[in-house]
Amino acid sequence: MTDSDKNESHKKKMQKQKEKVDAHIEASDIERGVFILLTGNGKGKSSSGFGMVLRALGYDHKVGVTQFIKGAQLSGEEIFLKEKMPEVDFYQMGTGFTWNTQDRSGDIAAAERTWVEAERMLKDESLNLVLLDELTYMIAYKYLDEDMILNAIRNRPPEQSVIVTGRGGGSGLKDLADTVSEVKDIKHAYNAGVKARKGVDF
Amino acid sequence: MTDSDKNESHKKKMQKQKEKVDAHIEASDIERGVFILLTGNGKGKSSSGFGMVLRALGYDHKVGVTQFIKGAQLSGEEIFLKEKMPEVDFYQMGTGFTWNTQDRSGDIAAAERTWVEAERMLKDESLNLVLLDELTYMIAYKYLDEDMILNAIRNRPPEQSVIVTGRGGGSGLKDLADTVSEVKDIKHAYNAGVKARKGVDF
Repeated sequence: MTDSDKNESHKKKMQKQKEKVDAHIEASDIERGVFILLTGNGKGKSSSGFGMVLRALGYDHKVGVTQFIKGAQLSGEEIFLKEKMPEVDFYQMGTGFTWNTQDRSGDIAAAERTWVEAERMLKDESLNLVLLDELTYMIAYKYLDEDMILNAIRNRPPEQSVIVTGRGGGSGLKDLADTVSEVKDIKHAYNAGVKARKGVDF
Repeated sequence: MTDSDKNESHKKKMQKQKEKVDAHIEASDIERGVFILLTGNGKGKSSSGFGMVLRALGYDHKVGVTQFIKGAQLSGEEIFLKEKMPEVDFYQMGTGFTWNTQDRSGDIAAAERTWVEAERMLKDESLNLVLLDELTYMIAYKYLDEDMILNAIRNRPPEQSVIVTGRGGGSGLKDLADTVSEVKDIKHAYNAGVKARKGVDF
């Protein structure tokens, strides 16, 4: 095929694709906040949540972030939001990973305190986007009641979008979510002996 | 099991998990920049890349971003980086999706111009993190030479981390990457007729 033939065939293929894309956009006419679940074992779930936070801040949207589990060590996202985006409504459970605390009843009390903040955000009509980072573990460990969480997400203001991240968490969140992505771990630098990296992994 | 039994058994399980985690951290002693590939059909690849940008900015790391394909329409990440983080080295191909341009030779010329900027970033020792958003399509469409791209990533400064996002892109990137996550589309709001959402989808 000559280059000019390639260009011509490319153009025809792209015209067809454009018709398909346009028809789909035309058919998508429901405007409301969405609930996105980012789950699976691979790297990229929390960072994807924070990428959407960055995107929302570009439009000067109001954003709320509740981080479950994380917070015993400082993270790039925490420093960034606290120092550079103090207008973001940010709350951290701050107890660290369960294998560090080794304290089930302490973890449960911390989860319950943190949920009060998450629930407040899910009722706040001024927030366009709420990120509930690592919430799935609270359900998996039975630290928080699943129905209570599902109801709060279901009854949020209709214009508010919600992102939940974390492995597992059961079928309740999956069924309720509008969008579910499963981040599969194909390979991870960690397993090749490379240290977790500041500004990439935390 | 009583609550106190549950707490005790939890503690034992977590002690074991901590030993495993600690041993793994101990064994991970290589410190260098990593190459992360975020691929698959699901939502969350570009946003994950931008989440790592946010994380890196928290540590005042220097960041470079090259966006392939995107840019015909304004996006939250573009507004955010240009208006709020002008210190980020940001370049956009700006031609939009191939099905909109329908112009193969024009797209190739734009891809080559954009690659010049990407390659410059991959040689810049001052950059801690480089995000090459949607680069995979340039390989899939044969707009850019795969070996040229792989070599540039391979020969980057050792302390620099690189993130590549996009569907497909072949095995060359996968083999070279330290970390590969495949974002699987379990479900998407778009397929239920919900419009793409500002501050979430773009």
